[in-house]
Amino acid sequence: MAPGVDGAAPPGGADAAAPTNAPPPASKASPPDGASRLSARGRSLLAPFPEYLQLSFAASADPYDADTNPRGFISLSVAENRLSADLVADRLARRPPLPAGDLAYGNMSGTPDLRAALAALFSASLLRGKRSIPVDAVHLASGAGAVIDLLGSVLADPGDGVLIPTPLYYGFVRDLASRAGVATVAAPMDPATGFAITAAELEDAWRANARRVTPVPLRAVIICNPGNPTGAVMPRAEVAAVVAWARAKGLHAIFDEIYVHSTLEPPPLGGGDDDPAADRFVSVAEVLADAGEGGLGNDVHIVWSFSKDFCGNALRAGVLLTDNAAVREVFETVTYFSSVAADTQAALADALTDGPWLEGYFAENRRRLSSAAAAAAEAMQAARPAGAAISAVAPAAGFFLWTDLRPLFGALTYAETAAAAAARGVALAGGPDDEFAREYAVFKRLVRAKVLVTPGDQCCCEEAGWFRFCFASATEAEVRVAWARIEDAFRPQPVFP
Amino acid sequence: MAPGVDGAAPPGGADAAAPTNAPPPASKASPPDGASRLSARGRSLLAPFPEYLQLSFAASADPYDADTNPRGFISLSVAENRLSADLVADRLARRPPLPAGDLAYGNMSGTPDLRAALAALFSASLLRGKRSIPVDAVHLASGAGAVIDLLGSVLADPGDGVLIPTPLYYGFVRDLASRAGVATVAAPMDPATGFAITAAELEDAWRANARRVTPVPLRAVIICNPGNPTGAVMPRAEVAAVVAWARAKGLHAIFDEIYVHSTLEPPPLGGGDDDPAADRFVSVAEVLADAGEGGLGNDVHIVWSFSKDFCGNALRAGVLLTDNAAVREVFETVTYFSSVAADTQAALADALTDGPWLEGYFAENRRRLSSAAAAAAEAMQAARPAGAAISAVAPAAGFFLWTDLRPLFGALTYAETAAAAAARGVALAGGPDDEFAREYAVFKRLVRAKVLVTPGDQCCCEEAGWFRFCFASATEAEVRVAWARIEDAFRPQPVFP
Repeated sequence: MAPGVDGAAPPGGADAAAPTNAPPPASKASPPDGASRLSARGRSLLAPFPEYLQLSFAASADPYDADTNPRGFISLSVAENRLSADLVADRLARRPPLPAGDLAYGNMSGTPDLRAALAALFSASLLRGKRSIPVDAVHLASGAGAVIDLLGSVLADPGDGVLIPTPLYYGFVRDLASRAGVATVAAPMDPATGFAITAAELEDAWRANARRVTPVPLRAVIICNPGNPTGAVMPRAEVAAVVAWARAKGLHAIFDEIYVHSTLEPPPLGGGDDDPAADRFVSVAEVLADAGEGGLGNDVHIVWSFSKDFCGNALRAGVLLTDNAAVREVFETVTYFSSVAADTQAALADALTDGPWLEGYFAENRRRLSSAAAAAAEAMQAARPAGAAISAVAPAAGFFLWTDLRPLFGALTYAETAAAAAARGVALAGGPDDEFAREYAVFKRLVRAKVLVTPGDQCCCEEAGWFRFCFASATEAEVRVAWARIEDAFRPQPVFP
Repeated sequence: MAPGVDGAAPPGGADAAAPTNAPPPASKASPPDGASRLSARGRSLLAPFPEYLQLSFAASADPYDADTNPRGFISLSVAENRLSADLVADRLARRPPLPAGDLAYGNMSGTPDLRAALAALFSASLLRGKRSIPVDAVHLASGAGAVIDLLGSVLADPGDGVLIPTPLYYGFVRDLASRAGVATVAAPMDPATGFAITAAELEDAWRANARRVTPVPLRAVIICNPGNPTGAVMPRAEVAAVVAWARAKGLHAIFDEIYVHSTLEPPPLGGGDDDPAADRFVSVAEVLADAGEGGLGNDVHIVWSFSKDFCGNALRAGVLLTDNAAVREVFETVTYFSSVAADTQAALADALTDGPWLEGYFAENRRRLSSAAAAAAEAMQAARPAGAAISAVAPAAGFFLWTDLRPLFGALTYAETAAAAAARGVALAGGPDDEFAREYAVFKRLVRAKVLVTPGDQCCCEEAGWFRFCFASATEAEVRVAWARIEDAFRPQPVFP
């Protein structure tokens, strides 16, 4: 278990949320000018983004282009779908004019039109028509991160904790810690099962926490399904088991279903059964409906966003679906601090209520995503960096190949692994043999080759050597170039006599 | 001093921020379903909006219309400019299409285009070209409320306090308390001067706080200039005096200049000198530039928003202007939780960089605002509710007439004042003679007449009987109907024999 992830974060502080295995934040000779005028809380928020994100931001200023910038960065690290952004941009451009009256204050949790459109969408997609979601179950905030931040604030007090299966989406850790002061407790999943999320392993982590001298008071569990970084979808029975387990423990169950409309048909790397991935995915909302429940109850909440399924990270439009009346009441006011422009909401409502467009978009987006996933899997399988075959967990949805680069460990030099261990600057039990130092050394070699991916350490993975490769943030051709670069980066250096 | 405003708010709790003089929140027989599943912090956030805001929301469902709903509500309570919304809506509709690439993650503090456009706007309007504002001084978040919330978090720790002249804009109190747990300490200004903001009275309030058994640790002062609710602009020398005073005390000085482009020409009710109001307004940025300073320093910050000057409350696009490098660094990350849709930002940047449109818009908006202000002042002066002449502080900018309704106190019956005192449900030293009970009784009579205004108590005014009348949220004809209703509401009831 990654000890830096666990434990109570100081209120408002992000320090406790930094994974111990992670590379240290870019060190500064001195704090920025004016830091002494900040509050203690303000200074705690000075912690910069993790290195892989900073590199991604830097890389966006030097992007690869086959014709104009063939030495630029290929970024496969950010959870971004650029493949269908043209379709969304085209639809936004066809919006009707906003009525002048809609510029005045409205509902802070979302416009009536967009909330109604989302309720209809979710009734169809998450519930397959088995139940109608009421409009007032739907709340908008400026991105899924804001939803997690607000939800964390409402369900947990500073120092309380949330249990999250690992490998995890690291945004959860920051979202909970930064403003809400809520800690993350890791629940490591089994590499042998492709890190499949199970109630049994949540129970193990819960018990490990309870055995601590000072257990973290747990308030909730967050389940990402379809998975980030694995791309896996949970079997129906396991979704039900997790909800039953959370209820038995008195925990809220937060299901992040942000990739629900981004299923892959056919899934690359096998792993599918006879059902299409869209059918294999089962929302917790449908599981509860099948159990005869009329809603999500007071303790199950669903998070979604336009970021992934609609290629709209920059639209900052996240969604909370909840049937807890008290949570709804709080969200009607706290979303004042993170509400979405009525202008953007009107354009999104217009798109969602355009049935033919929506159907065509989902189909074409799935086609493009699936094609990109297949091409990425093929490029990975064809590559032989350091002579090794590379494999990944078979995804059924989402944007990622969760890739096992442990075969490359043997090709690292002692010097670069030792340098990586030193650069990480944290106490390493294993010294230069430390497996996470090897992971970091692989990461650094990829950065030198101008290929950016997310090291598993940033996903709080317990087993070193896994990397998250996004196949939706670059073209298929770029992904092939990336693998060619990886082959080159791990080609034995010729020794001249 | 309103004791409920002062004192340390519990972290994350808004309770301590409710003015003691205020009507109690709409009471509930029982907490909403699911409340027991919230954290202590979550339950503290269940406090609803104050009654006058709830009434405003309810009234928006039943708005007055001379032809179709002559018995509907006329709302003069929300700080909203509806007079020029058509111009803004037209311009938004003429936006260019958003490039697909702009749907991907970008800078969380604002798009480069909009930040550059705002830097240019402020260099011209706040600084009159005396200095150029650097682009990285500009940060966007989802509304001025979000900016205050984030700034409060960064500059103050939970339990710390911010000094604010009263009467105040009550949003400040909620914005600081709700999430950041920062307390408000009132600095009452002198009714005899029209509540003009002075450094001398800030010093009095500072000393009163210091004399407490447990002083609130003060970290900042917030100055709203042009004023809300007074509409006054501070003399240049007083702006300089406030900054000097704040610096001597080691406080941050936050200037809310949200009405800077909404000056009134000519100002109604006299009160102007030879200079146009636009010239009489002096930004703290200009004051510092005139003093030879190259920027705002580490301790002066300016808040602005598209809400008021661009009729865009629903655009949720607030702005922080700061030269403190540490604050900038924190904002680059914490604005992740409240960033503005790139789509909306692109439309706003396009409008701001359209020089001819911008110039025409500002001129026409000032013309409409000034005409509305003059008409509202005329209607107020012509009215004789309860046979009384009504007066207001002379505004130079903004949307409000800060109106003295104390002449109506004598027309209240003993029974309605006693009922108002009882309805307020808080310990009242004066019983039914309590002046704030009289203010509340006037408010309730206006509500029955379907005229909504903001009682001074909600502005934490120390002197009872003042009301904020917004002249920009309704047409001139509607404002005249409102005053006719007020006359009717205070007409002596005929006694039939």
